[in-house]
Amino acid sequence: MWYAEVLKKRRNAVGRTFCDAIKKGKRAKEAKMKRLSIVLAGLAVAMACGPGTARAVYEDNPGTPCLVCHETQTPGIVKQWEESKHSKVNIKCYVCHQAREDDPSGYDHNGYWITAVPSPRYCESCHAKEVEQNARSKHAWGAFLGPLKPYYAEARKQGLDPMSQETAKKLDVETLTKTTVSALFPDSSILKKIGLLDNVKYNHNNVNLGCNACHGSFIQAGKDGELDGWPNAGVGRINPDGSLGSCTYCHPRHTFSVAEARKPETCGQCHLGPDHPQSEIYAESKHGNIYAASGDQWNWDAPPGQWGPRDIVAPTCATCHMSGFGGAVESTHDVGRRLYWELQPKKSVPQWKGPDEVDFVLERVPDPEKAAAGRKEMKTVCQQCHSTRWTDDYFDEFDQVVSDYNMLWDYTSGLLDQAYDEKLISKDLPLDETPEIMSYLIWHHAGRRWRMGASMMGPDYTNWNGAVDAIMNKLGTMINDIEMRRRLKALEGKK
Amino acid sequence: MWYAEVLKKRRNAVGRTFCDAIKKGKRAKEAKMKRLSIVLAGLAVAMACGPGTARAVYEDNPGTPCLVCHETQTPGIVKQWEESKHSKVNIKCYVCHQAREDDPSGYDHNGYWITAVPSPRYCESCHAKEVEQNARSKHAWGAFLGPLKPYYAEARKQGLDPMSQETAKKLDVETLTKTTVSALFPDSSILKKIGLLDNVKYNHNNVNLGCNACHGSFIQAGKDGELDGWPNAGVGRINPDGSLGSCTYCHPRHTFSVAEARKPETCGQCHLGPDHPQSEIYAESKHGNIYAASGDQWNWDAPPGQWGPRDIVAPTCATCHMSGFGGAVESTHDVGRRLYWELQPKKSVPQWKGPDEVDFVLERVPDPEKAAAGRKEMKTVCQQCHSTRWTDDYFDEFDQVVSDYNMLWDYTSGLLDQAYDEKLISKDLPLDETPEIMSYLIWHHAGRRWRMGASMMGPDYTNWNGAVDAIMNKLGTMINDIEMRRRLKALEGKK
Amino acid sequence: MWYAEVLKKRRNAVGRTFCDAIKKGKRAKEAKMKRLSIVLAGLAVAMACGPGTARAVYEDNPGTPCLVCHETQTPGIVKQWEESKHSKVNIKCYVCHQAREDDPSGYDHNGYWITAVPSPRYCESCHAKEVEQNARSKHAWGAFLGPLKPYYAEARKQGLDPMSQETAKKLDVETLTKTTVSALFPDSSILKKIGLLDNVKYNHNNVNLGCNACHGSFIQAGKDGELDGWPNAGVGRINPDGSLGSCTYCHPRHTFSVAEARKPETCGQCHLGPDHPQSEIYAESKHGNIYAASGDQWNWDAPPGQWGPRDIVAPTCATCHMSGFGGAVESTHDVGRRLYWELQPKKSVPQWKGPDEVDFVLERVPDPEKAAAGRKEMKTVCQQCHSTRWTDDYFDEFDQVVSDYNMLWDYTSGLLDQAYDEKLISKDLPLDETPEIMSYLIWHHAGRRWRMGASMMGPDYTNWNGAVDAIMNKLGTMINDIEMRRRLKALEGKK
Repeated sequence: MWYAEVLKKRRNAVGRTFCDAIKKGKRAKEAKMKRLSIVLAGLAVAMACGPGTARAVYEDNPGTPCLVCHETQTPGIVKQWEESKHSKVNIKCYVCHQAREDDPSGYDHNGYWITAVPSPRYCESCHAKEVEQNARSKHAWGAFLGPLKPYYAEARKQGLDPMSQETAKKLDVETLTKTTVSALFPDSSILKKIGLLDNVKYNHNNVNLGCNACHGSFIQAGKDGELDGWPNAGVGRINPDGSLGSCTYCHPRHTFSVAEARKPETCGQCHLGPDHPQSEIYAESKHGNIYAASGDQWNWDAPPGQWGPRDIVAPTCATCHMSGFGGAVESTHDVGRRLYWELQPKKSVPQWKGPDEVDFVLERVPDPEKAAAGRKEMKTVCQQCHSTRWTDDYFDEFDQVVSDYNMLWDYTSGLLDQAYDEKLISKDLPLDETPEIMSYLIWHHAGRRWRMGASMMGPDYTNWNGAVDAIMNKLGTMINDIEMRRRLKALEGKK
Repeated sequence: MWYAEVLKKRRNAVGRTFCDAIKKGKRAKEAKMKRLSIVLAGLAVAMACGPGTARAVYEDNPGTPCLVCHETQTPGIVKQWEESKHSKVNIKCYVCHQAREDDPSGYDHNGYWITAVPSPRYCESCHAKEVEQNARSKHAWGAFLGPLKPYYAEARKQGLDPMSQETAKKLDVETLTKTTVSALFPDSSILKKIGLLDNVKYNHNNVNLGCNACHGSFIQAGKDGELDGWPNAGVGRINPDGSLGSCTYCHPRHTFSVAEARKPETCGQCHLGPDHPQSEIYAESKHGNIYAASGDQWNWDAPPGQWGPRDIVAPTCATCHMSGFGGAVESTHDVGRRLYWELQPKKSVPQWKGPDEVDFVLERVPDPEKAAAGRKEMKTVCQQCHSTRWTDDYFDEFDQVVSDYNMLWDYTSGLLDQAYDEKLISKDLPLDETPEIMSYLIWHHAGRRWRMGASMMGPDYTNWNGAVDAIMNKLGTMINDIEMRRRLKALEGKK
Repeated sequence: MWYAEVLKKRRNAVGRTFCDAIKKGKRAKEAKMKRLSIVLAGLAVAMACGPGTARAVYEDNPGTPCLVCHETQTPGIVKQWEESKHSKVNIKCYVCHQAREDDPSGYDHNGYWITAVPSPRYCESCHAKEVEQNARSKHAWGAFLGPLKPYYAEARKQGLDPMSQETAKKLDVETLTKTTVSALFPDSSILKKIGLLDNVKYNHNNVNLGCNACHGSFIQAGKDGELDGWPNAGVGRINPDGSLGSCTYCHPRHTFSVAEARKPETCGQCHLGPDHPQSEIYAESKHGNIYAASGDQWNWDAPPGQWGPRDIVAPTCATCHMSGFGGAVESTHDVGRRLYWELQPKKSVPQWKGPDEVDFVLERVPDPEKAAAGRKEMKTVCQQCHSTRWTDDYFDEFDQVVSDYNMLWDYTSGLLDQAYDEKLISKDLPLDETPEIMSYLIWHHAGRRWRMGASMMGPDYTNWNGAVDAIMNKLGTMINDIEMRRRLKALEGKK
């Protein structure tokens, strides 16, 4: 597939200058020269900031000229960096913030050519494996799988590269995203109906601060470091250099702490709410209870790959979905790898083929073999604490829930079709009439809670916020509403 | 009552061999012999696991043959046990996991006769008082009071023992639970209407992973350790040996920590969500705020009965409902003991008589005297920090809320009857028409939040998620819907 | 304005006897005499409590006679006080609990003239600046801006002092609050419709334990320390001495910890739920994630004004809205000071003039200049960690969301008017018909979540619980309901 080629090319192009130099404890001549020029430039800036203080700061911080100003201008991030592992191994500001030549976000900042958006390609120099795994994950593709799908589809249709700055400009990615009527943008139908969808005064800015805040925006670089679609640290952000994703979303700047990424609240910044409440489900699960009760005493700082059942009493999100867990499985940044089911679509199927296999934004190809391999890995994690029988039985119970939901969805979509056939509702807008809205909620909200609750031992989400809400509340409303429309239509027909 | 007899018989039969031996610091000859055989058998297993490693492990662990394999196979639980108080006082795996002779869940596991489901009767050997108190609580009866009530009623009607494995098989407890139309299983009406209730392909597995996950399942033992209704650790689980409940639900295995059971998140694994959000109410209360802000500095490990106002700055769930609180009251595992009101039924009444007094699954007998005694105990807890006047006034305010809800419920059920009388809705299914569903939510969801919020200083749950949701949203919808039906019926009648 | 006069008078009257004496390390003769009499009286009480114990306790606690009894009667609060800063600087029980001469809540308690409700005027002796700032805040006026607004308006109309005990009695503040049909008391319309609003048996006690628990009650003092509207610690409580507010709401008694007030859970006791979920929004924001993941390692005890970006890795509510943040801005107890927008009204406007400028309960005067100054301060806080560009761009995005909501509200209120005009619904009760209830929820619940979510980086609240819920769910329901009514009316008209 086309993205496989992109990945391959990029893999070969990974530069590791800084990281290798640091790891090997030696400095290339080039790096030396670069540092010298940084120091000199820093000196100039220092003087601009106020010679007295700057001089003192500079003498304490040779090689960290950025701090000369930023220690007083943005002290918070300086302090965070100081506490980070980066500061311990000599990864200073300019190592990550120096803009690459081909990065359109680069601009001159007091004599330094920097970027405000270091992309995963910058992190890749030292963290190549993690970046490569993430690039294949649904995380990295989160914007294109979500709010930017209409743009992506249009770009691909026109044979354009959806990651390029030129395509974004040509197709006007923001306007396209905010004016396409779609279930991906569920307020669009009503907004169209009431005339606000295309009203230029209406900003649709729940897209920027809502959808895109998690899924990621398309960042377009202007002159002198100006950025459109910024600030944004969404997990599937399209960066000015054409790369996907944002490492800082889970490893928040500037501590970049592994401990933080292992805590469930980090995942909970997106995985929460009516449509994917994994955070709430975890909190109600026995795993989450134990974390809440004793997590402050666990060992959160074990090195990647070694963090295991002797460090923690119950798993967090990262444990099951990503960690090596004491070496029991291979650790991964491809967060969906260990899952059997796709739980988010209208009808659940085994895990889809990934972006390195098909154009998975547009083609959804279930791969039962890959899904089975993923589940096997997941079970291995479970079995560090649970017996094989326990584990197998639990997944059997879970699969039965997925099957139940699928049957209920078949009924729901059949009922919707019937309402269209009887002309009780119209097809001109997909989400404006009560039966349409209810069927959306049965799938997108309650039906996900039902399945996701069952996947992670969250009884309340499986039942009350899941099955009961889907069936009694939402399908109940849909059935009652359709019946009312039928009676009204019959009465109207009699005149 | 019939269960009083059961309790009495069981009380006499409690064996305390292990516990007494341990407490007195001596070993009965019988125990010595048992241990020897365990060690020898362990050796055999050790060899099966891999002689080299096993030998080393064995030499470090005389008397803990299970660890020989489980240290590498399920390292998580071994580590948890190591950190538990059990490991300190020589309570090793086989003390709890050796299946009793009359336990149908026993099976041979590498030469050991074990059970995967140590019931409260196992814990009883050392923790007799706690198990006895719990056996009388609504916790232990949680399955029969909830999803398994139809099964329980049928068993009692036929004069069968509802706790026996034979009855469960004869009446097919799972099918009975999953196909009875009832408000206990609120999606049943719509499922019946759309033909899924009795569809054998539809698993109704939100019952197993939803209802039963908290309330408890009926665990049926098969051959060789096979278990039906497993995994399950629900608080009212019916164990293969006929006992009720699961200690591990609140004292999670294998640390069995008293600190964990004292934390509110433990209770929050079930007491949350739309229908009994005690966890959310606590979190919003001043008590919960203080816990969140400073709880990590409190003393959670004081011995049972001694944990008191000098250990903690604010109470948790366990403090008010169970703890001796520094000796101010008697500690209890009968969690409902200190309550005046039953807040969960359609209409609130003083605390019901317990299972040792009446067949309380089927007979609901309010006992104002017992309720008053319970409240007196509760007030004693309050008064460790609050004045008598404060406490009395608060409970007066709370009682007024309960009275308000009861009046609103009377109106609601009267309105529903009127809709039936006017033939605006039909009685053939109890929960399929909007007014029926709304009245259910007024009682079961919003009405509980209203009362429970008031009981524990949760203003948002008392008002917004309680009274306002019950009255403005749900009763409002019910009234508007009935009016629509009335107008439609009038129009239809005119033709 | 009238309240400016009140404030001015009060400012001059602030007595600082205890505080100044303590701060200067000397004791006025008067204070000495007072203490002597306290000790002697304490001795008498000690004897009443039981001579043996009391004597011992007394000898250990000269000057703390209250402890003689309270150490055994309410040990929790004694322990809290012991751990407080107050206990370290000699602020004993009677310093705060001795009733002032003009305080009607004073009563004789074992020979001491005490109050159970030390108001902000008591705290003012030592914390004058904080009390003065708070007195101008929406916090202190929370009751009058909320549930007690009808009472306040009536008092002002009649030219009475709304803070006086006499006015409260004359106008019967509780009955007035509980029987006025209004959007401030949103269940009132339906209750009126079904005959419960004026039913004397119906207590409307969700007002006391719901609304007033946060907003504050009007506390009326009776004889011998009897209190009506008690217990209550609501943030806008009207105290018997005529002052507004309750310091203990955020600095819970009797530790009065600054660390606790800095934690987000403290604010979350009121700022949560369907109508103002700042707590949930914070929890899902990156700020809240970082707090959850590492907050237990931060420095919470830095002195007021000094707490800054080197103490914490992410801000809490207090950081942005109140703290000096390392000296970057002036710290304040006027919690709304740094806000540009009023996000709670039906239509958002720049910050209102305060109670020291206009009678802001009854007059809402947007003050764009003040709002701009507030935002400037807020941005200064942001910029301790974020760049100017980041900060400016974020607020631009936020402003666009506010504008979107305002446009949507205009449409909604227009639609409601149209339904009235077409006589599809009636105006006799403001909140009993579905379109009315939906428009209320679009404003008061979903519309606030939409705006507040955007203000604090909570994507899920901006989009799913905000815009999508407002537009697809609530406006969708409103539109569908109006269409049904229109069709019904057309049919009825044809007969």
